[in-house]
Amino acid sequence: MPSVFGNVLHLSVFGQSHSPAIGCSLDGIPAGIPVNVEELNAFMARRAPGRSDTATTRKEGDVPEFIAGITDGHTNGAPIAAIIRNTNTRSRDYDELRRIPRPGHADYPARVKYGNAHDVAGGGHFSGRLTAPICIAGGICKQALEHMGVHIVAHIATLGPDGIADEALDPMVYRAEQQQAILAGQLPCISADAAHAMRKAILRARDGLDSIGGIIECVAYGMPVGVGDPMFDGIENRIAQAAFAIPAVKGVEFGAGFAAAYLKGSENNDAYRMFDGHVAPQTNHAGGILGGITNGMPIVWQMAVKPTPSIAQPQLSVDMDAGADADLSIHGRHDPCIVPRAVPVAEAVCALALYDAVLEDGLPRI
Amino acid sequence: MPSVFGNVLHLSVFGQSHSPAIGCSLDGIPAGIPVNVEELNAFMARRAPGRSDTATTRKEGDVPEFIAGITDGHTNGAPIAAIIRNTNTRSRDYDELRRIPRPGHADYPARVKYGNAHDVAGGGHFSGRLTAPICIAGGICKQALEHMGVHIVAHIATLGPDGIADEALDPMVYRAEQQQAILAGQLPCISADAAHAMRKAILRARDGLDSIGGIIECVAYGMPVGVGDPMFDGIENRIAQAAFAIPAVKGVEFGAGFAAAYLKGSENNDAYRMFDGHVAPQTNHAGGILGGITNGMPIVWQMAVKPTPSIAQPQLSVDMDAGADADLSIHGRHDPCIVPRAVPVAEAVCALALYDAVLEDGLPRI
Amino acid sequence: MPSVFGNVLHLSVFGQSHSPAIGCSLDGIPAGIPVNVEELNAFMARRAPGRSDTATTRKEGDVPEFIAGITDGHTNGAPIAAIIRNTNTRSRDYDELRRIPRPGHADYPARVKYGNAHDVAGGGHFSGRLTAPICIAGGICKQALEHMGVHIVAHIATLGPDGIADEALDPMVYRAEQQQAILAGQLPCISADAAHAMRKAILRARDGLDSIGGIIECVAYGMPVGVGDPMFDGIENRIAQAAFAIPAVKGVEFGAGFAAAYLKGSENNDAYRMFDGHVAPQTNHAGGILGGITNGMPIVWQMAVKPTPSIAQPQLSVDMDAGADADLSIHGRHDPCIVPRAVPVAEAVCALALYDAVLEDGLPRI
Amino acid sequence: MPSVFGNVLHLSVFGQSHSPAIGCSLDGIPAGIPVNVEELNAFMARRAPGRSDTATTRKEGDVPEFIAGITDGHTNGAPIAAIIRNTNTRSRDYDELRRIPRPGHADYPARVKYGNAHDVAGGGHFSGRLTAPICIAGGICKQALEHMGVHIVAHIATLGPDGIADEALDPMVYRAEQQQAILAGQLPCISADAAHAMRKAILRARDGLDSIGGIIECVAYGMPVGVGDPMFDGIENRIAQAAFAIPAVKGVEFGAGFAAAYLKGSENNDAYRMFDGHVAPQTNHAGGILGGITNGMPIVWQMAVKPTPSIAQPQLSVDMDAGADADLSIHGRHDPCIVPRAVPVAEAVCALALYDAVLEDGLPRI
Repeated sequence: MPSVFGNVLHLSVFGQSHSPAIGCSLDGIPAGIPVNVEELNAFMARRAPGRSDTATTRKEGDVPEFIAGITDGHTNGAPIAAIIRNTNTRSRDYDELRRIPRPGHADYPARVKYGNAHDVAGGGHFSGRLTAPICIAGGICKQALEHMGVHIVAHIATLGPDGIADEALDPMVYRAEQQQAILAGQLPCISADAAHAMRKAILRARDGLDSIGGIIECVAYGMPVGVGDPMFDGIENRIAQAAFAIPAVKGVEFGAGFAAAYLKGSENNDAYRMFDGHVAPQTNHAGGILGGITNGMPIVWQMAVKPTPSIAQPQLSVDMDAGADADLSIHGRHDPCIVPRAVPVAEAVCALALYDAVLEDGLPRI
Repeated sequence: MPSVFGNVLHLSVFGQSHSPAIGCSLDGIPAGIPVNVEELNAFMARRAPGRSDTATTRKEGDVPEFIAGITDGHTNGAPIAAIIRNTNTRSRDYDELRRIPRPGHADYPARVKYGNAHDVAGGGHFSGRLTAPICIAGGICKQALEHMGVHIVAHIATLGPDGIADEALDPMVYRAEQQQAILAGQLPCISADAAHAMRKAILRARDGLDSIGGIIECVAYGMPVGVGDPMFDGIENRIAQAAFAIPAVKGVEFGAGFAAAYLKGSENNDAYRMFDGHVAPQTNHAGGILGGITNGMPIVWQMAVKPTPSIAQPQLSVDMDAGADADLSIHGRHDPCIVPRAVPVAEAVCALALYDAVLEDGLPRI
Repeated sequence: MPSVFGNVLHLSVFGQSHSPAIGCSLDGIPAGIPVNVEELNAFMARRAPGRSDTATTRKEGDVPEFIAGITDGHTNGAPIAAIIRNTNTRSRDYDELRRIPRPGHADYPARVKYGNAHDVAGGGHFSGRLTAPICIAGGICKQALEHMGVHIVAHIATLGPDGIADEALDPMVYRAEQQQAILAGQLPCISADAAHAMRKAILRARDGLDSIGGIIECVAYGMPVGVGDPMFDGIENRIAQAAFAIPAVKGVEFGAGFAAAYLKGSENNDAYRMFDGHVAPQTNHAGGILGGITNGMPIVWQMAVKPTPSIAQPQLSVDMDAGADADLSIHGRHDPCIVPRAVPVAEAVCALALYDAVLEDGLPRI
Repeated sequence: MPSVFGNVLHLSVFGQSHSPAIGCSLDGIPAGIPVNVEELNAFMARRAPGRSDTATTRKEGDVPEFIAGITDGHTNGAPIAAIIRNTNTRSRDYDELRRIPRPGHADYPARVKYGNAHDVAGGGHFSGRLTAPICIAGGICKQALEHMGVHIVAHIATLGPDGIADEALDPMVYRAEQQQAILAGQLPCISADAAHAMRKAILRARDGLDSIGGIIECVAYGMPVGVGDPMFDGIENRIAQAAFAIPAVKGVEFGAGFAAAYLKGSENNDAYRMFDGHVAPQTNHAGGILGGITNGMPIVWQMAVKPTPSIAQPQLSVDMDAGADADLSIHGRHDPCIVPRAVPVAEAVCALALYDAVLEDGLPRI
C-alpha cells in the first residue's frame, strides 16, 4: 500500500506530476474540527514553488479545492478530499526520459517495477509535487493539534557543503519569537544571518549548475505525556515512516540522534526533578520520546535532505532500450535546493504522525 | 497497534521481561519455506546475553519453542508462533520502581499511559528482551531471503565517545570474508583491531559505572531491482519503522544519509553505466533505494544506538507518588553497552522489512 | 477507518451527496492493467439513476473523471483517482433534516456521532450515491479479473413482498446467455417474465407511496483454486465486509447459505470426482469456498436489500432539538426500489474483494 | 493477513489442530481492564468438547495459560498472549488425508494453496479447534464490554432439517432470565422444550452417521449510540468479517435480515418516538444499526451454521496423487452438530467486533 498513512487516520495521496490533478483523501478525522482555509493556504504557500530566486521559477497556484469532508468551516466526520489541478499536464513525448534514467531519481527502478506503463512525465507519482497533498492533510492535522495546544515548528538547521548552521530551536520550551522569525524570513531560519548566508549558497549552487542539500529540524511543543506505543508504533517509528515519504530524505533522528552514540549514559540520560508539581526532565536528549511514548518534553527530530538530483550539468547515464551508455542533460526549471520548500513538509508529516497517535489513544479530540 | 509489523507479513510480538514467556506470531508467510532451526538458534545466540564480559552476566537460554506454523522443517502456511520461557519471572515487589522512574527508560511515560496496571518488572514490554522474538521472526525472513540470494550483514560501525571505527562493509558487492570476520570475532566487527579497541572501551565504561552507545551499519546484498513503493511504504520507511522498534535506537539513515546533506548533487548522484549487459550504478550514495524502490545496489543503512540508560551511578529522579525529588540507584546486572547484542537485531528488522516488501510485490516466494 | 477497503489494494471512498464531488482513490493496483473507459462507463450507467420509471427521476451523469493513475489506457502503477462532480450541491437550509431524523436512515446515529458538524444534506457520506465511486474501483477490478478469465455476474434473485423470483444463475458453469439476458432486460433479470413482474411490483410500491426490497445473487465464474485465507481473511469475510458497505444490505450468504442450516451433512457436502484430469466437485453448496479459500467452483453469494427507507408516506419521528415527537414527510424524488441499481454494485464489491485476494496471493497480475 | 482481526485492537490467532499448542495475542487493549479468569474459563468451557452426548467425546482441557499482558488480574497495556497446549499432537502418517480430501472441508483448496507443506493433521489451522483462542480474546472483550454495561447473549435459534425453533431473544430490552435459561440448559436455548427437541435431533443425526446444522442468534444489549462507521467499517461489516472466521458459517444477517427483503418500507422502517427524554425506536428491524452505526437499540444478528462436514458415512472423493476417484470413510470422534459449541463463539466474535469499534471511537475505555 504505497501512498497510504495512518492507523486511525487514513491518508491516501494520489496524482502524478503531469496528471490532470493531484490530491488526497483523509479519512478517520473526527467531526467538528475547525479548518481555517486561509491559514491552510498560507501554510501551502510556504511549500509552493516560484516564490523566490532560490527556488524553481515554475509557478504553481497550489490552492486546494476541497471536494468533500468540510462543511461550514468544520470537518463533518466524512473523509476530507481535496485536489489541486495540474497546469503542467502531459503533452509531449517522454520517450527519451523513459529510456535514459536520471541519476538520483526513481526513473530506473520505476521502469523495472512498472514497465512501460510508468508515467515518467515530471517524475510521475515520485515527483516532489506530491508533497503538496501531504501538506493539505498535514496542515489540517497541524491546526487540530494547535487547538490542543501543540505547536509544530521547523526550520533549516544546516545547509550545504559548508554546513551553514541556523540557531537551534529551543529543545525545552516553545519560544514564539523563534517561530515568528522563521515565518518572516526569506528562508525559514531563526537567524537572519544564517538565512542570508544560506541564500547565497543556494544561488552559488544554481550558478554552478549544481545543487545542495541540508538538514531540517522540527520540534512539536506541547504534546501531552503518554501518547504513542512501544515497538513498531512508537512516535519515532510513526514520524520516520511519514518523513521518509518526502523525496530526498535520507536520514531521520530524534533528540540527540546520531550524536547520542558518542555520549555516555550518564551524559545522555535526562535527569528528573519535580518542578511546579510536575515531573520535569532537566534536559531533552531523548527528544521527548522514551520507549516510543511521549514524555511531555518537546518532540525534537531532524531529517537529512539530499541535494536535488536534477542538475543542469551533463551526467553519465545509460539508454535502457539500446543497452548502451548515454549522456544526459536535464533541461527545465529545477530547484538548486529543495530544503527551504521541504520545511513545511516536515511540519506536515510531524503533524500527521502525532495527530494519528493522539486519536489512536482516544484522547479528547478537540 | 503497538507491537505489530508488516503489510503482507504480519508480526505480533508479545511478552514482558518478567511474564511467564515472550514470543511472537508471524502470519502471512508462504508455505514451503525451509526453516533451519539450528541456524536460527545460532542467530539467536548472537543476541543472547551472558556470553561475554562486555555484556550482562544474566544467562538466558533464548532458544525458541515453536508451537505452530512449522511442519517437517518447513513453513506450512499457517501463522508461525514461537515462545521463549522467562526464567526471571515476577517475584518481588516493584513498588519502588513504579514510583521512581529510571532516567532514559520508559518508566515515566508508561506509568502515565498505563497507570498502575503497567508491568514495571524488568521494563515490562519495553524491555530489550523483546528483541528476542523479533530475532525469531526476522531470522526466518533472513533465511527466506537467503534462499532468494539476498545476504544481510551488520556490524558495529562506530563505538563510544571516541568513535572507534570498524572498517566499512563494501557498499558495492558482497564480500564473504567480511561477514565471516564479523561472525568469528569476539565483537561483531570486520577489523580485529577495532573489535579489540571496542572491547576495551566497553570494559572501561563498565568499570566507570557508566555505559556507551554506538552506530550499527547493516547491508542487504542481492535485492532484486524494483521492490518497494513510493511515499509511505518505501524501503526506507519500512526499515525505519522496524528499526525504531529496537529500544535505544535514536537515528536511522540510508546510503550517504546525513552526510548527503553536505554533498553537491553532482557528487551525490550515482552515475549509471552499462556493465555486462546490466544497468550498473557506479557509486552507492543512494544506499540502494531511489524513490522508495530498490535499484539493485546493496541496501545500506545505519542506526544510532544510545548508551544503555541503566547505569550503576546514582541518578537524579523523582518519587511520583510523593511528588518529590528522589535519588535513584539501579542495581542488577546490566549491559554497559548494548550495541554488540543489537547487531543481529538490526539484521532481523532489515530482513522483516525487505521480505514483507518482496511478498507484497508478488515476487517468486522461494 | 470507515471508508477504506483492501489488504494489498487500497480503496478510499470520499464525498457526500451534496459536496462538490464524490470519488475514490485506488492504490496498490499493479501497473499495466488495461482500463477500457467505455466499458467502465457502461458499467457505471447500470447503477446511475434516471434511466427508468422504476427508479428516481433524478438525472445524474455519473461519468468519472480520472485525475490520476491511468496513462494511455493502462494503469501506471500510481494510485488511481477519479471524481464525479455533484450537480445537486448543498444550497439550502437543512435544519429540519438535522432535527427530525428519517426512520431507517443514518440521520439519528450520525447526529449523535458527528454532532452538528454532520453534513445531513442528501444523506451526506451515507448516501447511496457513494456507491458510484465503489463502482469505479470495482469496475476496474472487474476488468482486471476478466483479463484473468473471471466473469462476475449479478441479477435480482427475488423481489418484493410476493417474492417474485428470477431464474437462478447456473452455480456450476458460466452461461453467457444468462449474462446477456441480464444486461439486455429492462431490469437485471435472466427471465423476461420475472423482469416484467418485478417492474410492475416496483410501480405498485411507488403508487402506494411505499418501497420494496429484494435479494441479489452474484456469481464469480472462473476463479482459480487456492485464493483466499483461513479465518478473518477468507473469501466470505472479504466479500461480506465489502457488501455490507452498500447501504440497505442487511444479510449476506454464500452457496446454500441460510438454507444449509436445514440440510444434513450428507446432503450439503459437495462430493468430489475426477473429471477430465481435474478435481471436480459434483455440486456447489459451498458456493466455491472451503475454509475461506476458493475451490475452483463458481463463487456464489446473495445479499438481502431492505426496502428503501425514503418513502412518501408520513412517518413517526421525533424533533431532537425540541425533545418531542414529530411527524415527518419526506419530499423529493426517491427510488421506490433500489434493488435494480444495486445489482452492478454487488458485482463491484465482489470484484474488489476477489481481486484484492488475488493480488495478496501473488498470482500473476495480468 | 489471514488470521488477524481488528483496527485498534489487534488479534492474531495461531496454532494447528495437532501443533504443540494453539493460542492468540491481543494487542491494543487498554491497560487496567479487569480480567476475571474464572469467568473466562467458564466461558471457554461452553465451547469445549466432551461435555455432552451431543458433542464429540474427545476431552480437551481448554484452559488458557496466560503468558503475557495480564498482571494482578488486570490488563497491563502490553499485548495479551495466551496458549492452550494440544494433547492430540501429530504422531502418525497423514498421507491418506493429504491425498484424499474430505468433502466440505478445506483439504482440497488448502493442498492447492499450500502444497505438501500444509499440515493436514486434524484440519491444521482450519480446525474448529482454532475457535478456542478466538474465545479467549473475545471473552476478554466481552468482560470489558460488560463493565460498560453491554451484555452479549447468543442461543440456538433454529436447529436441523425440521427447523426446531427456540424462543427469540427480546429484540428491544435485555431480559436476564433469557440469558440464565440459556446458560442453565443442556443446550444453549431459552426454551427447555426446544433444547430437549434439539438434543433428540442431534442424537438422531449421530445415530444416522450424519450431521445437522442450525442458526445462531446473537444480541448485544446496551451499546451506546454512535459507535461504528459508514461503508466498510460499519458494525455489520465488522461483525460479519469476524463471524465468517468461524468454520461452517455460511450466512450472516442483521435485524430483519433476509426477511427485510420481503417487507415494505413502511413496515421495515423503525419509527421514532420520544420516551423518558430519549429518542426511542419503536421496533428493531434495523438490528440496532443504521448506516453502519449503532442507534442505541440491541445489536441483533444471526449466523447460519452448515452441518458438520465430517460424517461417518462413506463419501465420494478423489485421490489427488493418483488422479482417480476414491471413496472416503472418516473415522474418529466428530460432532454430529457443531451448533451448540458455536454459540459462545458467536458471542466472542461479536464482542471482538464491538469492542474494537468502541476503542476506535475513543469512548471511555472502562
